[in-house]
Amino acid sequence: MLVGIGLMPHGNPVLEPPDGETRKLAEVLRKIGEKLRDVDAYILISPHNVRMSDHLGVVLAENLISWLGFEGKELPGEWKTDRELAEKVYRTEKGAEMPVVGLNFAALRGEYSRWPLSWGELIPLQFLERKPLVIITPARNVSRETLVKFGEVLGDVIDTDKRRIALIISADHGHAHDEDGPYGYRKESEEYDRLIMRLINENRLEELLKIPEKLVKNALVDSYWQMLIMLGAMRKAEFELEGSAYACPTYFGMAGALWVRKN
Amino acid sequence: MLVGIGLMPHGNPVLEPPDGETRKLAEVLRKIGEKLRDVDAYILISPHNVRMSDHLGVVLAENLISWLGFEGKELPGEWKTDRELAEKVYRTEKGAEMPVVGLNFAALRGEYSRWPLSWGELIPLQFLERKPLVIITPARNVSRETLVKFGEVLGDVIDTDKRRIALIISADHGHAHDEDGPYGYRKESEEYDRLIMRLINENRLEELLKIPEKLVKNALVDSYWQMLIMLGAMRKAEFELEGSAYACPTYFGMAGALWVRKN
Repeated sequence: MLVGIGLMPHGNPVLEPPDGETRKLAEVLRKIGEKLRDVDAYILISPHNVRMSDHLGVVLAENLISWLGFEGKELPGEWKTDRELAEKVYRTEKGAEMPVVGLNFAALRGEYSRWPLSWGELIPLQFLERKPLVIITPARNVSRETLVKFGEVLGDVIDTDKRRIALIISADHGHAHDEDGPYGYRKESEEYDRLIMRLINENRLEELLKIPEKLVKNALVDSYWQMLIMLGAMRKAEFELEGSAYACPTYFGMAGALWVRKN
Repeated sequence: MLVGIGLMPHGNPVLEPPDGETRKLAEVLRKIGEKLRDVDAYILISPHNVRMSDHLGVVLAENLISWLGFEGKELPGEWKTDRELAEKVYRTEKGAEMPVVGLNFAALRGEYSRWPLSWGELIPLQFLERKPLVIITPARNVSRETLVKFGEVLGDVIDTDKRRIALIISADHGHAHDEDGPYGYRKESEEYDRLIMRLINENRLEELLKIPEKLVKNALVDSYWQMLIMLGAMRKAEFELEGSAYACPTYFGMAGALWVRKN
């Protein structure tokens, strides 16, 4: 069953917070790790692993290996895939006619069945107990309805599993908060990030579906698609927000939120 | 235009041949490198990169980085993707309704757009000049007809390009040649490998389509699907066999063959 959900950023600053806001955000991330520490597996949706425009991916490879840090921040480590759960997610999504591929590398099983991890997974993983993982990758050119449906099917798969499973959404938000940053300043980044925090804090996540496409595009976000998957998965039960925080110490917005199952 | 095709193994023994047969095979591989050294780009189809059961993949990531050697044989190095050609292959195959995904990792462009290489690519690359690459991955649960069609479309894309392009098929054949090997001994491995060499040497590649599914399966091969793609690409022009060799120094069969365009 799905026992909790963590929305987690993947920016380096949460590892060594440079200011009070980022310290508060890091506290929420530690709380996510603490509250979800007794789960049997994490399903982690990351926008910085494989990127396919029109297919979601489920990593089936057995060994998950740190490969790529951002701006020189290397975070070595190895994790194991929860192969049985990964296969079940892949097969069920495929059966529901979702646009999804199962991803292996080099060999289908054993020590050579490996998959690389980037900062998109590694930074959230720094706050989580080492458990078996299922890595899922979102896709930007898939319809909103399909992403939500993918999440609903994912929620079904998790609920047919007797074990305690948590869903982790790796996401950063607007990337144009700083005129000296790589994407310059755009008011839409501020607008999107404020809206996302309101929808989180006011329990209005269904309104994610109402956000105009133009705002998502112009805000240069890295969160919208995986949050729609989260929305679909959360429809399967009731969840309570146990903490949230936002910080923007450099050019991109970072949010943390923890939801725990009520019933 | 497609100027030549190299069928190349990816077993460690070709790097340091332990016997006369393997030395002859390595000579053919060096000849492939020599004859194709003036091309503008290589399209390399490898069965040991991403493995998806029902979708082929075209790597769009810009930087191709050595990641995984076999049995400790590390072969460090970096290559660049021919991004324009890769995008053209992906778009055209997609337009022809082929089951294909475009593959990126971490970022869509720039230094963080990276892709890992395994021995499946790295061993053939040891024999080839360092040129821009397009990495393609085959799929085993796609019909024979679709694989050949994928190759035909690939041949069309290459022929609309004015530059000189070579196609490299990374493939090992039967894997059950040695009763002390990891897959034991099966007579089908011998049978498949002998048949493949006959089809190559007697210019009967169209007969690949007649090989019984059971033989492909029982011979435990790692070559059939990418050879069907090769067959499709080769239908677009006439090619002459300029060299071939076979060796089986351990438990799996390795073949090398070079075809050069006639007209």
